Amino acid sequence: MTKQVLLLPGDGIGPEIVAQAVKVLDVLNDKYNLDINMTEGLVGGAAYDVHGHPLPEATLEAALGADAILLGAVGGYQWESLDIAVRPEKGLLGIRSNLKLFANLRPAMLYPQLADASTLKPEVVSGLDILIVRELTGGIYFGQPRGIRVLENGERQGFNTYVYSESEIKRIGHVAFQAAMKRNKKVCSVDKANVLEVTELWREVMTDLAKEYPEVELSHMYVDNAAMQLVRNPKQFDVIVTGNMFGDILSDEASMLTGSIGMLPSASLDANNKGMYEPSHGSAPDIAGQDLANPLATILSAAMMIRYSLGREDLAVRVEQAVSAVLDKGLRTGDIFSVGMTRVSTSEMGDAVVEEL
Amino acid sequence: MTKQVLLLPGDGIGPEIVAQAVKVLDVLNDKYNLDINMTEGLVGGAAYDVHGHPLPEATLEAALGADAILLGAVGGYQWESLDIAVRPEKGLLGIRSNLKLFANLRPAMLYPQLADASTLKPEVVSGLDILIVRELTGGIYFGQPRGIRVLENGERQGFNTYVYSESEIKRIGHVAFQAAMKRNKKVCSVDKANVLEVTELWREVMTDLAKEYPEVELSHMYVDNAAMQLVRNPKQFDVIVTGNMFGDILSDEASMLTGSIGMLPSASLDANNKGMYEPSHGSAPDIAGQDLANPLATILSAAMMIRYSLGREDLAVRVEQAVSAVLDKGLRTGDIFSVGMTRVSTSEMGDAVVEEL
Ligand SMILES: CC(C)[C@H](C(=O)O)[C@@H](O)C(=O)O
Ligand SMILES: CC(C)[C@H](C(=O)O)[C@@H](O)C(=O)O
Repeated sequence: MTKQVLLLPGDGIGPEIVAQAVKVLDVLNDKYNLDINMTEGLVGGAAYDVHGHPLPEATLEAALGADAILLGAVGGYQWESLDIAVRPEKGLLGIRSNLKLFANLRPAMLYPQLADASTLKPEVVSGLDILIVRELTGGIYFGQPRGIRVLENGERQGFNTYVYSESEIKRIGHVAFQAAMKRNKKVCSVDKANVLEVTELWREVMTDLAKEYPEVELSHMYVDNAAMQLVRNPKQFDVIVTGNMFGDILSDEASMLTGSIGMLPSASLDANNKGMYEPSHGSAPDIAGQDLANPLATILSAAMMIRYSLGREDLAVRVEQAVSAVLDKGLRTGDIFSVGMTRVSTSEMGDAVVEEL
Repeated sequence: MTKQVLLLPGDGIGPEIVAQAVKVLDVLNDKYNLDINMTEGLVGGAAYDVHGHPLPEATLEAALGADAILLGAVGGYQWESLDIAVRPEKGLLGIRSNLKLFANLRPAMLYPQLADASTLKPEVVSGLDILIVRELTGGIYFGQPRGIRVLENGERQGFNTYVYSESEIKRIGHVAFQAAMKRNKKVCSVDKANVLEVTELWREVMTDLAKEYPEVELSHMYVDNAAMQLVRNPKQFDVIVTGNMFGDILSDEASMLTGSIGMLPSASLDANNKGMYEPSHGSAPDIAGQDLANPLATILSAAMMIRYSLGREDLAVRVEQAVSAVLDKGLRTGDIFSVGMTRVSTSEMGDAVVEEL
């Protein structure tokens, strides 16, 4: 049966990078019977500008009805002074929570062809392959109460609530342990259990859960130490599992270690492998609309979508091999350019991937 | 008048590194009339083992009465299963809050003699000199309510509260802007204002405050981006100001960029420059008691103490020059050792610094 894919290009470089992934999906449809139907929706600042809200009702309905969502990026300077309730980011957060996409998978791996793009010494990062499993629908991002109140002395006070229940922790823990079973069988759970009660519970639940996965080695690390260890010796990690906020910080740090954040896809899944797929990088407003952005993270996000939500592992591999082939040929967008390589634009890169399919 | 210095060696490598700083302080007392009186107290796991509490009344009283405190480190594996309320870390947190040490200054700088110790490429970190100003007595570390409760469905839920008032934000903001005035006049304020209301207020207050420092250039950065930018291009930063939790994470990441966290001191100050001084690194239980640890961060913390709380800039500089001299001589503890250098123990390093005074 034809599957429904919702495209949400969003803001900044979003539209131009999603356009490249669409070229790829079109070819897979025509040539390899991927059998998807694509529709497009507004989200983020683009939606706010038209509807006054970053997640219009129509977009949410389309998202709920789709089998998978491919998102570009949201946000930009022009919306930074808006209230949190209507910022572009709220569009993204709204989809995550309404669709219960609690499991965010963010691989941080170094492409051998791009070994030199990292700011870290080659011996520290060569062969790097970390999977960050970030809880995405709970924690301080969604905790209540939250807001800004006026104190008795007349000054304002901002407050947010960091909260996790046992079942939320277990649910994301299972995802991490199961992912580790298919990898190097190591899970590092990151918390701040020496200071925050919510993460004390996190550590306890993870420790219990580990008993169900006797083949997997579980370790615990405080978040400050994890931020250090990622710089000191990132190859010690296999799977990292952590909450929404720490996952936001550590996954960005980890992806930058590879020097090629423009290459890194991500998946946000619900309990039934329905998901939203998006590049790990942001909306890069400074280069938007200039045909400069690297579309490979989005194309690789489409590959993850094909794998997890569309059930066509064969075509996911085909896309990944095509990306590898264009790198082998020396094609590079500006973010991963180095001397001796061939500089290409966003659309040229998309075309080159299509050619390899 | 003779100033009172409280020594709190703490746990792990704490006692052996503080002992080296004491050698230095003794010489300054004898030879250069530093005029301090040193007493020692128990804190952390060491205090828990004797008194059942990581911050005994006697220690707190001595801390309140002292002009300055020099701390080694707290924590270790054997206390990790204790309740948060009596963990070693609580000793440290208790001093910070009881003494109102709201301003934590953490320099992350690369010693030219140790350029190669970093995992980052030399051109990315050479000349690195960042000052992280971390709020230390508020935020989610101290926010109420907090704890673990049982929900109606019978499962447990952990919760903590991230909270800042305008006056708390202003107070730490002033410290950052004033520090920047003596440096490169750039402040980067780190928040997550696109998601958390508490940091929306943070951003607003910092923006207002900047008007009082027209010479200083203020920028804002989301914490996930800051964690990335520290890896991508750390030299873009001068002063970073942020809350307690983000400061914990980013200061550890920043100090590891230098490859020589064993060299980095820190100061935690109140409104009157009374302070607690400690190395940026932890208690390193795995090498404790083996005369292997690097005492230089503690000795440099003593130098910061001499500068800020004891008012003897001349002697602070003398200590810093002595440290530089031993590095020039090629003396290295294991953490900063490289081929061609002379490997020394903790106590040998302490003696070498003393010799240079
Ligand atoms: C845009 C923002 C709300 C989002 C987040 O913080 O989750 C982004 O940083 C991410 O990591 O996907
Ligand atoms: C030991 C711990 C409570 C402490 C903190 O988190 O503040 C430490 O990591 C630090 O940064 O000084």
